[in-house]
Amino acid sequence: MKRLTEKNLIAMVKNLQLPLPEGFVGIGDDAAVLPKKNAPWVISQDMLVEGTHFRWDWSEPQAVGYKAAAVNLSDMAAMGAIPEAALTSLAIPKDMSMEVIADLYQALTAALGEFGVPIVGGDTVGTHGRFVIDVTILGVPTVFGPVLRQGAQVGDRLMMTGTIGASRGGLALLQAGIPWPGRDADEKTLLTAHLRPVPRVAIGQKAAEYVHAMTDISDGLAVEVGELTLGADIWMEKLPVWDATRRVAGRLGQDVDSWVAFGGEDYELLMAVPPERVEAMKALGQAVGLVEVGMVTDRSEIRWIKAGRPVRIDGREVAFDHFLRN
Amino acid sequence: MKRLTEKNLIAMVKNLQLPLPEGFVGIGDDAAVLPKKNAPWVISQDMLVEGTHFRWDWSEPQAVGYKAAAVNLSDMAAMGAIPEAALTSLAIPKDMSMEVIADLYQALTAALGEFGVPIVGGDTVGTHGRFVIDVTILGVPTVFGPVLRQGAQVGDRLMMTGTIGASRGGLALLQAGIPWPGRDADEKTLLTAHLRPVPRVAIGQKAAEYVHAMTDISDGLAVEVGELTLGADIWMEKLPVWDATRRVAGRLGQDVDSWVAFGGEDYELLMAVPPERVEAMKALGQAVGLVEVGMVTDRSEIRWIKAGRPVRIDGREVAFDHFLRN
Repeated sequence: MKRLTEKNLIAMVKNLQLPLPEGFVGIGDDAAVLPKKNAPWVISQDMLVEGTHFRWDWSEPQAVGYKAAAVNLSDMAAMGAIPEAALTSLAIPKDMSMEVIADLYQALTAALGEFGVPIVGGDTVGTHGRFVIDVTILGVPTVFGPVLRQGAQVGDRLMMTGTIGASRGGLALLQAGIPWPGRDADEKTLLTAHLRPVPRVAIGQKAAEYVHAMTDISDGLAVEVGELTLGADIWMEKLPVWDATRRVAGRLGQDVDSWVAFGGEDYELLMAVPPERVEAMKALGQAVGLVEVGMVTDRSEIRWIKAGRPVRIDGREVAFDHFLRN
Repeated sequence: MKRLTEKNLIAMVKNLQLPLPEGFVGIGDDAAVLPKKNAPWVISQDMLVEGTHFRWDWSEPQAVGYKAAAVNLSDMAAMGAIPEAALTSLAIPKDMSMEVIADLYQALTAALGEFGVPIVGGDTVGTHGRFVIDVTILGVPTVFGPVLRQGAQVGDRLMMTGTIGASRGGLALLQAGIPWPGRDADEKTLLTAHLRPVPRVAIGQKAAEYVHAMTDISDGLAVEVGELTLGADIWMEKLPVWDATRRVAGRLGQDVDSWVAFGGEDYELLMAVPPERVEAMKALGQAVGLVEVGMVTDRSEIRWIKAGRPVRIDGREVAFDHFLRN
């Protein structure tokens, strides 16, 4: 493998590139050019920093590259948008090898490529500090328009895809010194949920026709419900918590409810759905599991309901602080 | 000033925000939404890393914020594009103060605001490493389309705006332990050129009607000429080198020609212009100084011509390596 230089990096990046659609100008000019019909763009940018979002002793380079793609694709999913192009900037420590960067970048390219998303630009720079990867992703809304966080109405049902708390369980395992693949199937399941979250792109696009508001669950359920509405009841028994998550929480002596409420990085979708459309959404979401977990209320508080009564969930200490986690 | 937390950061960022154009969705959702008529987007991303692109003992926070905007605006200029929106991601060391970030961000916002460019999204994360700022900028081409690096033809004249070598001179002063504003007017001029490069946005847009190819001079003239064409003659006597640059080079015992050929970060525009359009371009570029500095040839080498003869310029050791500079 070649020496780590900017020229070799750009050559590698170009080599891994998807063929560009007609009329696109990609890497190699001062900027990329994306021809676009009569449609708005949806655009977001998410940065992952070594030591804050991941650690090299916990994550393979491939997992970091994959996750950088996944968290950005998840933002497109949360807007009900169709991802179309990405830009990637890397700050690379000088002692990093080209092999590691190539592994990471290949996984990133593959994860974006699964959705037909080419990398059309970006930057590669050296750093005397930590590794940083910043991805910008652009997409277009469906004919139903972009789905914002605003728009939830009192009486709307809260629905979510997939599962909750598993990613926080995976993080708890890593923090306990148990790396992937863990010591049994339960641990492997949770570690995978943390290291390889699945962006819910297809169901996000379908939801655009049906929902009032939507977001992805990156900062924990409590935070994200609060992004959609001032008031909500969350029905604890309805939350899609895996048995594996409960078992691992028990084994580690941690509170599964706090993982569920305050853990982060599930990258599932949370939607405010008008009651009459709940069944239709359930049918659409069968492949990923889409369940009703609560409703929007006119109170100005978020209540966690268990056995018909509001309960208090402690556990802000497990809250995902993506500002300075590790 | 408030404590450094993500919430306080986002509040500060929102506070500094320009009013958004009709139909835009900015900071606070999963992604920004930019409504767009029937036009392509031009988009680029440039990352500045502490210790690689700047040092806190050399640059005020305001200068770093300004430069992060300027280098990205310069990419829009180099495409002949009209900048329309930006996203910014910051990786912030935990010992940084909110004051410093606010100063930096305010300068960034102001520099973008001068061109009517709102910040519509991005990310703020903590880091245990160095400060990083990554800016994505989006624009639209003029009716003449985006101007690429490809397209230069044999016989085209090479023209450039402003001045060359001054930024490298400013860097040489900083490296010699002479901070802004320097010890005299010459030093102040060069330090300003390095710390506060002016993006050539207006002339870049005008050039779109006239030129075959264009780029900005970020990595040094030798590199950038090589981006436009395999073969060129550069007329050394015609290069717009300030007397201040020559004097400071003399004072520091450095070779001004090597600054000119291999120094970087001038952020001037370099254009390949058909001969019959040179006079028109000169007239258009009067305000910023736009001069003929060479021509595209059918040789496959770049020749530096002095007193009518090719000369060899040594000085790769001053070459700007934006991969790991300091």
